[in-house]
Amino acid sequence: MAGAPQQPDDARLMGHALTLARRGMGRTFPNPSVGCVLVKDGVVIGRGYTQPGGRPHAEAEALRRAGGSARGATAYVTLEPCAHHGKTPPCAEALVAAGVARVVTAAGDPDPRVAGRGITILKAAGIKVTEGVRKGEAEAINAGFFSRVTTGQPAFTLKMATSLDGRIALSNGESRWITGPESRHLGHMMRATHDAILVGIGTALADDPVLDCRIEGLEDRSPIRIVLDRTLRLPVTSKLVQSAARLPLWVITECAEGPAFDALAVAGVKLLNVSDIRDLNTVAMLLGDEDLTRVLVEGGGRVHASFLKAGLAARVEHFVSGMALGGDATPAIAALGLTALGSAPRLKLHGMRPLGPDVLASWIKEE
Amino acid sequence: MAGAPQQPDDARLMGHALTLARRGMGRTFPNPSVGCVLVKDGVVIGRGYTQPGGRPHAEAEALRRAGGSARGATAYVTLEPCAHHGKTPPCAEALVAAGVARVVTAAGDPDPRVAGRGITILKAAGIKVTEGVRKGEAEAINAGFFSRVTTGQPAFTLKMATSLDGRIALSNGESRWITGPESRHLGHMMRATHDAILVGIGTALADDPVLDCRIEGLEDRSPIRIVLDRTLRLPVTSKLVQSAARLPLWVITECAEGPAFDALAVAGVKLLNVSDIRDLNTVAMLLGDEDLTRVLVEGGGRVHASFLKAGLAARVEHFVSGMALGGDATPAIAALGLTALGSAPRLKLHGMRPLGPDVLASWIKEE
Repeated sequence: MAGAPQQPDDARLMGHALTLARRGMGRTFPNPSVGCVLVKDGVVIGRGYTQPGGRPHAEAEALRRAGGSARGATAYVTLEPCAHHGKTPPCAEALVAAGVARVVTAAGDPDPRVAGRGITILKAAGIKVTEGVRKGEAEAINAGFFSRVTTGQPAFTLKMATSLDGRIALSNGESRWITGPESRHLGHMMRATHDAILVGIGTALADDPVLDCRIEGLEDRSPIRIVLDRTLRLPVTSKLVQSAARLPLWVITECAEGPAFDALAVAGVKLLNVSDIRDLNTVAMLLGDEDLTRVLVEGGGRVHASFLKAGLAARVEHFVSGMALGGDATPAIAALGLTALGSAPRLKLHGMRPLGPDVLASWIKEE
Repeated sequence: MAGAPQQPDDARLMGHALTLARRGMGRTFPNPSVGCVLVKDGVVIGRGYTQPGGRPHAEAEALRRAGGSARGATAYVTLEPCAHHGKTPPCAEALVAAGVARVVTAAGDPDPRVAGRGITILKAAGIKVTEGVRKGEAEAINAGFFSRVTTGQPAFTLKMATSLDGRIALSNGESRWITGPESRHLGHMMRATHDAILVGIGTALADDPVLDCRIEGLEDRSPIRIVLDRTLRLPVTSKLVQSAARLPLWVITECAEGPAFDALAVAGVKLLNVSDIRDLNTVAMLLGDEDLTRVLVEGGGRVHASFLKAGLAARVEHFVSGMALGGDATPAIAALGLTALGSAPRLKLHGMRPLGPDVLASWIKEE
């Protein structure tokens, strides 16, 4: 079922739609973050992206802005238009109704309620369809949505800021700052574009962090904070708990009751009970059930090691500074107990760039 | 004393001279590796670079090739022409005698026997001189020569091939291979462009390496091999000693006699005696006295840590793979005993690039 051939401007115009799609990252879960641009006679007549919470969809926004002029236009959509009736009519039908002449898509939607049906609706209505334009970028934007739809689990990004020899703190605990302000700023941007941020109780106790997004103008983009805390050691006096009324805080624990449990619940913490917190696949399924698609894991070393060992690190964002801290400093990835290089977790280089005095290397899971 | 202004083609033509200069790296010590291009009416009429062992000089080579047509030409030289009478007459005088009209240089020569005198000779003869074209690149090529002239010590490059978390082996010793073939090839190229390669006895015993350059066609570029071996534990049966007749092997030791000393000496090993091998500044002075300018340090972790702690790492070439090996694997840099981040060895990013599946990050010492 070959589609309409790609046109010279398609890649460029899809680039606009991808930029729009990125705006919604971290705010549309459990829905995907999609961008849409409507173009007629070389002029952009409507733009839209998935709104916070997931509605309205990108196509609906763009069509609303274009109004009647959408007739005969080309729609650039980063994800296959939806085909199922939810809170709103399906976007594929809306594009047909608006009289759009051609639709260009980037990625297909693996959601079983869509999975090609959106494309089928468009083609049945005589709309020319070109698929797969800048597919890889669109898939990267919605890797978390795809992961949750296909596996039930969100996609986890491990973020680590280390010395050049992979250390996150001195043995005395000093860790501020190993990387520079440019790296820390981008780290906060990563918080803004994820649904949630997760740390282990060790990091929560050692650093007493808030785990918010502190970029001016993006304070409202702070993600849900999650702590893995088997025995509920997180103090009610911690900054995390103290800010729970303002910013959602979830604690995953093996405890189901007790004074600590009650105190945290009263403070506004959402407590999620698991029988074995070391079983990260079950924890990941739980977070998927809670609608999360993109989770940023910020350590410590034991948590990073556990996610890598469980095969749950979809991506590693590694900020590297020019400091050397030595073998007595705290490792970014704790013991993995490997006995052969062949069984080591192995990631593929996705990209790298200088970032002030540091380097950011991005690694993604090999399929 | 302003020189002649830079011309539009100067940077490009100096680029040719820099490429020539790089050919001699690792083969001209204790002399610098210099490149020279003679250009007349836009045509290259002579090219030369410092020959193995340091003679003839680049300018002499280029002038010999150009012959009588050098009169009125422009000479591009990566280093200020020499001014002192050694085995050959000084190059500054040779350029004057050949009737060269203009000389463009990249770096100045800090050798006290030159240090501006080459430029003075040229200017006194009415030759137009432009200095400092692509100076940084020329200084990088001769960083080792400059270091030895100004401090008496060679420049040390630490080379490490690690997992993304900075590990060079599993706890059981398995280390082949963490990085890919592209990284290993470039590692061998680095051997070819250094005067010597240095390892600790731990690495020599654990890996039983040959430490030669195994690139086809560059086998004769294998550097001098050096082992830091305080108590002479290096076995006569090791590949290093067994190849000592073919490839120079130096052992730096606190021993001055005994059966091990005699056995190594008989096998063709050059033994260098120091009173305290942990005093790396003295070891570095000794290597400078032995004419070395560029030394590649290939581990292990304790040797890397010692060079960093002594402030002797002029450069770190860090090959990073996408493997994670965990905190129980062997660190690329052993304990540094730091108690504050402010006292950590700190390097500046010089460049980075993908290398097959790996990343190469180059860090240089902050001045």
